[in-house]
Amino acid sequence: KLCRATLLSPGQLVVQNTGIKQESKAKMCWWVCFRAGYHSESKAKEYKHVCKRACQRAVDRLKAGALAVEAVAAALVELEDSPFTNAGMGSNLNLSGEIECDASIMDGKSLHYGAVGAISGIKNPVLVANRLLSEAQKGKLSAGRIPPCFLVGRGAHDWAVSHGIPPCPSEKMASKFSLSAYKRNKRKMELAEKIDTGHNHTKKRRQSSENENGSGCLDTVGAVVIDLEGNVAAAVSSGGLAMKHPGRVGQAAHYGCGCWAENACSMNSHSTAVSTSGCGEHLIRTMLARECSAAMQSEDAHQALLEAMQNKFISSPFLAGEDRVLGGVIVLRCCRCVEPPPSQNIQGILVEFLWSHTTESMCVGYMSAQDSKAKTHISRLPPGTVPGQCLAIEGGVCRLMSPYNALL
Amino acid sequence: KLCRATLLSPGQLVVQNTGIKQESKAKMCWWVCFRAGYHSESKAKEYKHVCKRACQRAVDRLKAGALAVEAVAAALVELEDSPFTNAGMGSNLNLSGEIECDASIMDGKSLHYGAVGAISGIKNPVLVANRLLSEAQKGKLSAGRIPPCFLVGRGAHDWAVSHGIPPCPSEKMASKFSLSAYKRNKRKMELAEKIDTGHNHTKKRRQSSENENGSGCLDTVGAVVIDLEGNVAAAVSSGGLAMKHPGRVGQAAHYGCGCWAENACSMNSHSTAVSTSGCGEHLIRTMLARECSAAMQSEDAHQALLEAMQNKFISSPFLAGEDRVLGGVIVLRCCRCVEPPPSQNIQGILVEFLWSHTTESMCVGYMSAQDSKAKTHISRLPPGTVPGQCLAIEGGVCRLMSPYNALL
Repeated sequence: KLCRATLLSPGQLVVQNTGIKQESKAKMCWWVCFRAGYHSESKAKEYKHVCKRACQRAVDRLKAGALAVEAVAAALVELEDSPFTNAGMGSNLNLSGEIECDASIMDGKSLHYGAVGAISGIKNPVLVANRLLSEAQKGKLSAGRIPPCFLVGRGAHDWAVSHGIPPCPSEKMASKFSLSAYKRNKRKMELAEKIDTGHNHTKKRRQSSENENGSGCLDTVGAVVIDLEGNVAAAVSSGGLAMKHPGRVGQAAHYGCGCWAENACSMNSHSTAVSTSGCGEHLIRTMLARECSAAMQSEDAHQALLEAMQNKFISSPFLAGEDRVLGGVIVLRCCRCVEPPPSQNIQGILVEFLWSHTTESMCVGYMSAQDSKAKTHISRLPPGTVPGQCLAIEGGVCRLMSPYNALL
Repeated sequence: KLCRATLLSPGQLVVQNTGIKQESKAKMCWWVCFRAGYHSESKAKEYKHVCKRACQRAVDRLKAGALAVEAVAAALVELEDSPFTNAGMGSNLNLSGEIECDASIMDGKSLHYGAVGAISGIKNPVLVANRLLSEAQKGKLSAGRIPPCFLVGRGAHDWAVSHGIPPCPSEKMASKFSLSAYKRNKRKMELAEKIDTGHNHTKKRRQSSENENGSGCLDTVGAVVIDLEGNVAAAVSSGGLAMKHPGRVGQAAHYGCGCWAENACSMNSHSTAVSTSGCGEHLIRTMLARECSAAMQSEDAHQALLEAMQNKFISSPFLAGEDRVLGGVIVLRCCRCVEPPPSQNIQGILVEFLWSHTTESMCVGYMSAQDSKAKTHISRLPPGTVPGQCLAIEGGVCRLMSPYNALL
């Protein structure tokens, strides 16, 4: 079964063809995939390259026996280390010219979660989030204190350093891209405020529908992974919106908004993992990661994601009055394949990988453990469609034949 | 109709009688209510007193024509200003002996939300959250930037001051209670770590089920309000767990976890407002405010809250392995009363107010605009029941006869 390409009314809604071919009955196959949000044509090559490296890194870890949550963290490190993404090194600068990062990670097996917000001076924020997650799994602290799942700012930085994560001088984290974007944005802002003040002294606001932040603003990175035991995990990392106010925390640190992962259980027939990218405030207020995960329990994953993106995001009552709702998601859902009765033997895991975005474009990479290298794809809204009002949706399906079927 | 007292198996579950008497067909009646979480017998009188003052303050604002969101903020200011609550003045001190507060507010009419996390040196964190909410409603910032809904740490403090909210010296925010609790907790922690190190040099953790944090740790404050137009709003404020790590953010700043408010719409027949209290990490990972709000669309509010507290909190798969799940909620739900066909005239608003907790006790106050003073009540788990495994649930119902029925 290949994913269907669906076209839904109203005319706004655009759905593209599927991108992944079926890899049926692949033996010893894991699955891993990434995205880097909205971005310019000129950076496409670099994006694809970093996605490939991230896939490779996660697959290497999976092959070495790592669980999904470790592999997803490894992939994020690679994405954060690239100066081309808005996460970790090369993040957007805030209003004060500083880098403050958000990141979170969720383990579908334990349902534990770790997050950091507005953290400075740490090269890989996802490693701090992951460490929070693993520390919380160890149980209570001394004197019965409950370990934190979410740390911000200076406290997050100090916690990281005291747990062996090395600090990184802030000036080393900016790239030439992020520095020149900061200067450009600062000039634009000053100009815009001068114009506004000229027009109206009392009202500094401007109802602008132009995307004046440039192309680098929404390039949050994320990943979703399934391991050979069938566990899922998701993670996300972001430098936040360009010229954000210091201390602003976006969806990447927000539970239910930046990433979500839940193994199948008695309540849910499917394991799901979701990671989101785009405008943080929109993704927070719609809680998009968790909404997409919940939708994935429907029979038809493609249709469910389409409806979730349309009804819970573009047309969400929580975003009434917003002219452009910008975001993207990558989604994994998996369930056991059972032979028809009377045998009912388990025949591996059916994995569906979908992505959808309302941004102009989204870069996706994916790889299974038996692939020699990752495949990458840049999904774009068709020409003439309006970002923030239209969406693209693509995806594919494969079956994993795990050597550990007995464990499923 | 008075709320039913229900007893459910298994034996763990305890349900108490209802606390509020019916106030049917009250004219020009608004509704406002508060809680301060888990607390000691000795402080009961002070708690009741501050709850009463907070109710009065909100009702004063409602009578002056304020909307629900303004009234709920006014109530929270009163609760934060009390040295007896763990919010604003008199908050718990963190590991470094500093006060860092979390607060958030949600407006059921606009569905906007504002939050601050780990903010220091501001007397009323809820006013910063409320200002973020109202600023976001004004639309985009200069150069098309999206206004933040969530600010943390130093950045949140600076934003507040730049928006006219006066700073407050940190040393003025500690009370004699919070300072002596800090010293006591610090001694306990040092002792506990010494014992742990003595027993096992490599393992500093302790799996303790005792509540060693003392009684002051979970006294988060919150409020839910309905105004005379039928709009709902909710807010929450907390100094966080005693001896928390600097930078730790709890449920009070977390979207969907600390408070939730949604006016009725085409999707939801009931308006709902929820505020939570208790162990922040448990309330985050179960997203309790939003779960309770969603449950409130069921026919029987009492039964729905009971099931939500049991299935989405005490027995939540997200908290598997936690021995004691401590929290409390206050819930408002409202719908239009319509006469039977053929007339179908609107006969005011039916308001149900419920509270439930797994903590030893919870203090609740409530008041309508025609009451001369607020009623308060301390709900306790019956003797012999185990906090964190049992729950109490109470509530009542009344009908508001608004002069603005035509608007409904």
